[in-house]
Amino acid sequence: MPTYRLDIAYDGAEFHGYAKQPNVRTVQGDLEQALGRFVPELETFVAGRTDKGVHAAGQVVSFATDDPIDVDEIQRSVNRQVGPRIAVRALSLVGDEFHARFSATGRRYVYRILDTLVHDPMLRRTSWHVPVPLDIEAMNAGADHLLGEQDFASFCRKSGDRSTIRLVRAVAWRRGPDGLLWFEIEASSFCHQMVRSVVAVLVDVGRGKLLPDDVRRILRARDRTTGRGVAPPHGLTLAAVSYDPTT
Amino acid sequence: MPTYRLDIAYDGAEFHGYAKQPNVRTVQGDLEQALGRFVPELETFVAGRTDKGVHAAGQVVSFATDDPIDVDEIQRSVNRQVGPRIAVRALSLVGDEFHARFSATGRRYVYRILDTLVHDPMLRRTSWHVPVPLDIEAMNAGADHLLGEQDFASFCRKSGDRSTIRLVRAVAWRRGPDGLLWFEIEASSFCHQMVRSVVAVLVDVGRGKLLPDDVRRILRARDRTTGRGVAPPHGLTLAAVSYDPTT
Repeated sequence: MPTYRLDIAYDGAEFHGYAKQPNVRTVQGDLEQALGRFVPELETFVAGRTDKGVHAAGQVVSFATDDPIDVDEIQRSVNRQVGPRIAVRALSLVGDEFHARFSATGRRYVYRILDTLVHDPMLRRTSWHVPVPLDIEAMNAGADHLLGEQDFASFCRKSGDRSTIRLVRAVAWRRGPDGLLWFEIEASSFCHQMVRSVVAVLVDVGRGKLLPDDVRRILRARDRTTGRGVAPPHGLTLAAVSYDPTT
Repeated sequence: MPTYRLDIAYDGAEFHGYAKQPNVRTVQGDLEQALGRFVPELETFVAGRTDKGVHAAGQVVSFATDDPIDVDEIQRSVNRQVGPRIAVRALSLVGDEFHARFSATGRRYVYRILDTLVHDPMLRRTSWHVPVPLDIEAMNAGADHLLGEQDFASFCRKSGDRSTIRLVRAVAWRRGPDGLLWFEIEASSFCHQMVRSVVAVLVDVGRGKLLPDDVRRILRARDRTTGRGVAPPHGLTLAAVSYDPTT
């Protein structure tokens, strides 16, 4: 069936997460209501379900339909309906086998921290304010333990019997263009609350409450209670999803 | 009397402007309530009164008092009280003759525009979305007519018999570090709604609805009805206030 890909961005503060739920505003709910005017029996798939408060700059959604689709007209109309909280950056016809979730080969998240003594009113919606000096070298040393295919049970919110093994391909703390501390992490996929759980531990490394090697110890314990809880959602953004060039 | 200077930032979306008013939340109201716990007969002065919705990154406030002041303790306490919407970046003892408004020699404002077809959810609070290509060269040519000491009556919201003559020292449209179009304007001081009125005209120049020379024509008319109304407040930020190094 002809399949379409949407590239979307949204302000997580406005939604109770991506996934549709009764009686609360969700990204999927708003998007499907707008798209549903053009695609009667709509079923959408998403690359990464984000939690309440988490933002997205490069989220990907797909759906298939035999109905005729004018992509430019629908993009304009959906943007009028879902804006300004959500933006459809692109809507395009892709190969029939494309599936936003199952075709994705990687996801990249960015977590931003303001590490100055005084907070910043204009950055409070998109960064976590940690008002102490953080040791970025120690945080990078700790983050390196996350690389490779490992069991991330210590950093996953339990979800039935699902596997907690993931392949982390890249991690780095660096100073972003806005002067904030940026944590970028790329993996095949992420288990529930994984990035925020990792950030909470690494910030404790940066504060000197944990040593970089404690990250390995926590990983090996495969026990969520060895972690440090979760960093707040508003610092987190799903930055990009990658696909094989052939799909 | 010992005089103190506060350097503050705030998110204009949260306030009905800077100046205190009954029954609505204002920056001055919040700030004086917090400072008033330490300075009983508090009277504050501000460098630039911003309108409802306008942000500030480098606003300056002053007050004088004979009461003993522990600047570090007060800065921390006020930040706890006024945060996260307002931030006191610095609080310092200055020369007795310092006055945030009358000692200021210049103010610099920045207006930000997102000029892409599709809006951006994370930029909607700090920029005006103008979804058409803008001719930045024409906008700079139009802006050049604003330089120097002139009567800006066409760009001023009428306020009694006050003079509308101002000295504009610098104007420039450029691409900012965030990819947005930034308009920076520096002047001795500004009349009410001046920056937003100027931006509305210059955006019409950028759209091709006005020619750069029309800016001179509008200026010379000294008549507000020749203008183009005002650009929305949320794109505007008071970036910095300058003082003579001797004060």
